[in-house]
Amino acid sequence: LNTAPTPKSKPDTPHETGRIEAFSDGVLAIVITLLVLELKVPDAQESVDFSLLHELLRQWPTYVAYLASFLFVLVMWINHHRLFSLIHRSDDYLLILNGLLLMGISLFPFVMALVARYLEHPQQRTAFAVFNGLSIFNSIFYNLLWRYAAHNNRLFSSSTDPALARIITRQYGFGPLLYFAIFLIGLWNGPVSLALSVGMGIYFALPNRVFNRFAQSAEG
Amino acid sequence: LNTAPTPKSKPDTPHETGRIEAFSDGVLAIVITLLVLELKVPDAQESVDFSLLHELLRQWPTYVAYLASFLFVLVMWINHHRLFSLIHRSDDYLLILNGLLLMGISLFPFVMALVARYLEHPQQRTAFAVFNGLSIFNSIFYNLLWRYAAHNNRLFSSSTDPALARIITRQYGFGPLLYFAIFLIGLWNGPVSLALSVGMGIYFALPNRVFNRFAQSAEG
Amino acid sequence: LNTAPTPKSKPDTPHETGRIEAFSDGVLAIVITLLVLELKVPDAQESVDFSLLHELLRQWPTYVAYLASFLFVLVMWINHHRLFSLIHRSDDYLLILNGLLLMGISLFPFVMALVARYLEHPQQRTAFAVFNGLSIFNSIFYNLLWRYAAHNNRLFSSSTDPALARIITRQYGFGPLLYFAIFLIGLWNGPVSLALSVGMGIYFALPNRVFNRFAQSAEG
Amino acid sequence: LNTAPTPKSKPDTPHETGRIEAFSDGVLAIVITLLVLELKVPDAQESVDFSLLHELLRQWPTYVAYLASFLFVLVMWINHHRLFSLIHRSDDYLLILNGLLLMGISLFPFVMALVARYLEHPQQRTAFAVFNGLSIFNSIFYNLLWRYAAHNNRLFSSSTDPALARIITRQYGFGPLLYFAIFLIGLWNGPVSLALSVGMGIYFALPNRVFNRFAQSAEG
Repeated sequence: LNTAPTPKSKPDTPHETGRIEAFSDGVLAIVITLLVLELKVPDAQESVDFSLLHELLRQWPTYVAYLASFLFVLVMWINHHRLFSLIHRSDDYLLILNGLLLMGISLFPFVMALVARYLEHPQQRTAFAVFNGLSIFNSIFYNLLWRYAAHNNRLFSSSTDPALARIITRQYGFGPLLYFAIFLIGLWNGPVSLALSVGMGIYFALPNRVFNRFAQSAEG
Repeated sequence: LNTAPTPKSKPDTPHETGRIEAFSDGVLAIVITLLVLELKVPDAQESVDFSLLHELLRQWPTYVAYLASFLFVLVMWINHHRLFSLIHRSDDYLLILNGLLLMGISLFPFVMALVARYLEHPQQRTAFAVFNGLSIFNSIFYNLLWRYAAHNNRLFSSSTDPALARIITRQYGFGPLLYFAIFLIGLWNGPVSLALSVGMGIYFALPNRVFNRFAQSAEG
Repeated sequence: LNTAPTPKSKPDTPHETGRIEAFSDGVLAIVITLLVLELKVPDAQESVDFSLLHELLRQWPTYVAYLASFLFVLVMWINHHRLFSLIHRSDDYLLILNGLLLMGISLFPFVMALVARYLEHPQQRTAFAVFNGLSIFNSIFYNLLWRYAAHNNRLFSSSTDPALARIITRQYGFGPLLYFAIFLIGLWNGPVSLALSVGMGIYFALPNRVFNRFAQSAEG
Repeated sequence: LNTAPTPKSKPDTPHETGRIEAFSDGVLAIVITLLVLELKVPDAQESVDFSLLHELLRQWPTYVAYLASFLFVLVMWINHHRLFSLIHRSDDYLLILNGLLLMGISLFPFVMALVARYLEHPQQRTAFAVFNGLSIFNSIFYNLLWRYAAHNNRLFSSSTDPALARIITRQYGFGPLLYFAIFLIGLWNGPVSLALSVGMGIYFALPNRVFNRFAQSAEG
């Protein structure tokens, strides 16, 4: 009698997470490319005063929001790539958790448009609160996904490095707290919070020597 | 003399369904990401009364429709993933059936927009009838695809678990009936039908212990 | 000294055409999904006469164009899938030919919108001429791609069935002529040409017993 | 003690760059397909003078921009394909460099729309300057990506042909200079610069016999 509703992966499939990664790559590639739709071509005017260069430069808030969002989604892809280079097996709960993470990521074109449209408006704080709130949501789901997979090495294989897994658990654990701090900063000064948020993302995406040394001494 | 118009798969291809899965992943990833285009940034106004927060909250029907549609498409991807973890071979009819299933799924951004736009309108029932009607269509095509593949183990391989295949056949068989019941409920109360529809999707996507025990006793 | 500008494929890559297929799957998945953006939600009106059902039914030309285009792009994907199940190697000219074929396919959302918008307009013939003209263009590029690959088995491997390759060469050779006939019919009656075009696509996508028997007797 | 934050790739993954290529294919497929959204269906008019054919032909600047951009993105995909057929390993810096390259490529639908809208406007030079400026940016990032990977064979494997790698290094080195020259030409005559830019892209994408012979004699 069969009691396992999750089918065994095909024996000739390279690894069980192949289709999750392909689907996630698709969603992330679309999200990062849809961002460009927020860049609008200025309407051509026939008046003598009209300067296309001037009109293009006047759109700088959109460019800032575009650059920030692109780097953001890129950092998320790098993180997703990193986690799934350690996660070797899959189950139905992982599919759900990964789906909710992708939902948070696919909301970026919307919150980016919100920030771009309100960057010079008196109520820009609301826009930044939504943007930073989404970052908190996403960092929580990164943690849930990772901890679900890492719990008792549930979805790891024998080739997964346990020391590296522990480093990632500790590093990701700081995420929600840091993004909550950035959220509070954004209530005071939105652009500063955006700069901090992007900077932090890049810092964690890059090979992080300081953190490693810290982790090393904590272990040693 | 050759009479088979379907070419044999390349000997070095991991499995015959690889490209069907890649194409389907692409369509599903785009559908689930396009949903975000229905979320609109409120127009900035200079009046003293204007509150961005208020304007954002006023759009709650769109958020409900977004969340429901995202979960819906996610559940469809999980189901597609499950079926194709058992289907190991491919033929031209499978390509056609899978294509028609993808057509139904790719209509979700349209029916979601319809529901969002009419959620507070007197004629919301028509919108829900279209939404629930699409679910009936999709569940019928899931059944056709699955039964075509499962008939005499047509597209299975020796590693496909026959007991698991039988459980899926029985579980999917209920789908069209249940969605027809939800369709009727939607003619009376649209939002209730939406909640039932999403809840049912999640219930069947999750590892389903109750159903398994039932299946187990029916088998044993 | 090295004179070959095309690098050798990685030894551990499953087959040389993997990335061409992945890129083509991406383009085709996006094209087939973008079609839904042409379906518009009717504007909600408060008047007593307003009927959402009536407004939805009034858009029937869009649904016809959607269905025709979806089946069209699906048939193109099935054809692409079939060709690349026989093409095992790649070179730079194949990349260019495949790219031009993808250009033709990615124009479908535009010509579909054109047909949908002008289906009830006195000048619908122009719209159908563009639609059918694109089909001629595409069938020519399918032939160029296939003949380039098949010439002296240039991009085949030892496992490619030569009899099957010959059947495809003959079958595809009729394509441009048939689509030119459909183009001429469209100048007289647009909808009839659309029906013929879709029907022919489906006929050739399905396992074609009549054609096979004909091919068989021609060979035997 | 573990000091490497980049996890080792799974032992059963075909090669380390698989997911980078899949993500890049996704972005490039979306970019090349989004271009079609710039082609607009002319509004249907009831007047006797209205000619759909005339209206379609009047949009020729959009078609020129579409064709140029499609070929451009196709050439970029071919180049990306070529580089990653030699790059066999991955690290975090490669992910970042590849991401910035994808950012440049994903801006093409925007600059294409800019050129299309201003092709007949007195200030078309500004539009061409942006278009050609983006090409300089992209050719610089192609060089950075390639040189990072090629430095001391950092991300090559034993099967990478060193002579071929040297040819590519030399060929790509000319890119930024050539695109800067095209940028200057565009300040004088935009359309000429566009034709040169597309022509150069195709020339380098095709198997380049002249260049190879030159490279050969330089080596020999």
